[in-house]
Amino acid sequence: MRQVAIGIDIGGTNTAIGVVDLEGNILYEKKPQLPTPQKRENPNMTVAVSDELIEKYIASLTAEIKTAIETIKQINAEIEVAGIGIGAPNANYYSGTIENAANLPFVGVINFTELIHKNFPGIKHVKLTNDANAAALGEMIYGGAKGMKNFVMITLGTGLGSGIITNGDLVYGADGFAGEVGHTTLVPEGRLCGCGGYGHLEAYCSATGIKRTVFELLAQYNATESQLAKVPYSEMTAKIVYDAAQNGDLIAKEVFKKTGELLGRSLADTVHYLSPEAIFLFGGAAAAGDYIFKPTKESMEKHLLPTFRNKVKILPSKMKEGSVAIVGASALVWKEIEKSNPIPLS
Amino acid sequence: MRQVAIGIDIGGTNTAIGVVDLEGNILYEKKPQLPTPQKRENPNMTVAVSDELIEKYIASLTAEIKTAIETIKQINAEIEVAGIGIGAPNANYYSGTIENAANLPFVGVINFTELIHKNFPGIKHVKLTNDANAAALGEMIYGGAKGMKNFVMITLGTGLGSGIITNGDLVYGADGFAGEVGHTTLVPEGRLCGCGGYGHLEAYCSATGIKRTVFELLAQYNATESQLAKVPYSEMTAKIVYDAAQNGDLIAKEVFKKTGELLGRSLADTVHYLSPEAIFLFGGAAAAGDYIFKPTKESMEKHLLPTFRNKVKILPSKMKEGSVAIVGASALVWKEIEKSNPIPLS
Repeated sequence: MRQVAIGIDIGGTNTAIGVVDLEGNILYEKKPQLPTPQKRENPNMTVAVSDELIEKYIASLTAEIKTAIETIKQINAEIEVAGIGIGAPNANYYSGTIENAANLPFVGVINFTELIHKNFPGIKHVKLTNDANAAALGEMIYGGAKGMKNFVMITLGTGLGSGIITNGDLVYGADGFAGEVGHTTLVPEGRLCGCGGYGHLEAYCSATGIKRTVFELLAQYNATESQLAKVPYSEMTAKIVYDAAQNGDLIAKEVFKKTGELLGRSLADTVHYLSPEAIFLFGGAAAAGDYIFKPTKESMEKHLLPTFRNKVKILPSKMKEGSVAIVGASALVWKEIEKSNPIPLS
Repeated sequence: MRQVAIGIDIGGTNTAIGVVDLEGNILYEKKPQLPTPQKRENPNMTVAVSDELIEKYIASLTAEIKTAIETIKQINAEIEVAGIGIGAPNANYYSGTIENAANLPFVGVINFTELIHKNFPGIKHVKLTNDANAAALGEMIYGGAKGMKNFVMITLGTGLGSGIITNGDLVYGADGFAGEVGHTTLVPEGRLCGCGGYGHLEAYCSATGIKRTVFELLAQYNATESQLAKVPYSEMTAKIVYDAAQNGDLIAKEVFKKTGELLGRSLADTVHYLSPEAIFLFGGAAAAGDYIFKPTKESMEKHLLPTFRNKVKILPSKMKEGSVAIVGASALVWKEIEKSNPIPLS
């Protein structure tokens, strides 16, 4: 008998569904992905409309999970599904609920794991958390954090997410929503953050933050000669900045330097809180390699108490951009099994 | 048979030694306290001098622990010493070492618990951590955090210490030194901190930080009429500021307001990291009551993501100033017993 976990990631546009083994290999993946219900297609949202959308969505998701299980059992009848792990925005691990998610058309608090579990009573573990926490678990179960008891995962995407591991366990906090490092204050009274707050880490060091820094520096230096001066605000990406830096563009290099200095100062705070063994960076911005890692590391070291210097690694995540959603979510299942059974899995 | 724990706190001037029961009552306390070896009395410090000082100190400490045990057994022969808990600066919980402590005349890394344990081979648990971590454990075992799995202790003294509890356990981090929230950056490029860094929380919100804010505000407003204008810098204390606020002094009130605003912003960061059930404030500054709690709470709420608002309590610690050192250190012992035995103690 071989155990597998189902990993589901509820994105704003699509829902990814896959089957993952103990080593993090995806054995099956639904393609194309299942569309996630859209807010913009439901402008007059009421509780009744929301309930109907949820019902339909759970029905489609259930059908897809059944297809996944059937498909995988055709390959190997001995396979047993150990659990279903779900990554979702505003996900509460403790209650299994999705609560007031801004990017989903669901009103209020949805008992998500309960709705799924009802359709799969034979599957013991059905758990849910947000995508950054799922990525952190993925790093611990399958990736670069194997054997680490204390580390932090930072995901640098449109936003800046984080997952915190202390004493070998994810920190969900009292209410299930811990790990919002992206919304700590980096620059008092600084840039407006997407959440409505000011000066948050996310507003400076996410991919979006990098873009904002480009235009701030273009304006500051009136840098009409920069390659980046040809790209409109709406089209700028971290990838374009990286390519410009590779081509020797001074503004692009300065953007990464500044981003790294700020991120490094913030990570020094992270170390002062948690003293992690390593901090993993994941996502598009992390793909800029030394452009971002070098100034980040330098700035972190500069801002650390002497006790912590030259101890904490800043590492690129071993999770893969294309598969982290499914693989990270599936890791929730193995973690639950580990918790309920002190004997290691492998 | 009744179990007791020995609590020892190594302060810069004196070492407190006591015997504590499961409810946190001090059954015996050495008075006067044992003097801690002094750096200033040993200006030409070498490894040899340090080793000699340590040897003498361990001998005195051992004698005092023996006296404590004998005294307590005269009261009740049935009493069993469950362990020795030690609070010390730069204490590494994992290795039981005191490492390069700036305020102690010991050179390098001292295997402190090993030296003590050698003299008490029959006592199972000999553990050490820093005083803020010990205070946090005290709060959890005996105080206001009973039953809480996620909370943070902030000690507002000459410095600003912290102890972090997640998933029911203290966060020691990868190297044993986690919980240095006092050295997170609050004001980039701000005040010089005692550690040599800039703009740290400790430089603003400790008792020393409050004093610095007094003189900053006196200077800013040229407030010759303030009661605080009569006190020289070297004599100013948080207690004097509190008394002035009680007497209606506007500068004193403004000092607490500003301190609370800054502390509250920092605690919002704490919540974004850890989502604690409560944050406990301990120490002289916390004794200022509403003067400090009210602006701190308001500022924290203002800086929180909506998800976290009106959820996190800011509470005065139930640990007592006069006994926290011994009582907090003793809590280490009960925590060790809890870890090695999943059946609750009481």
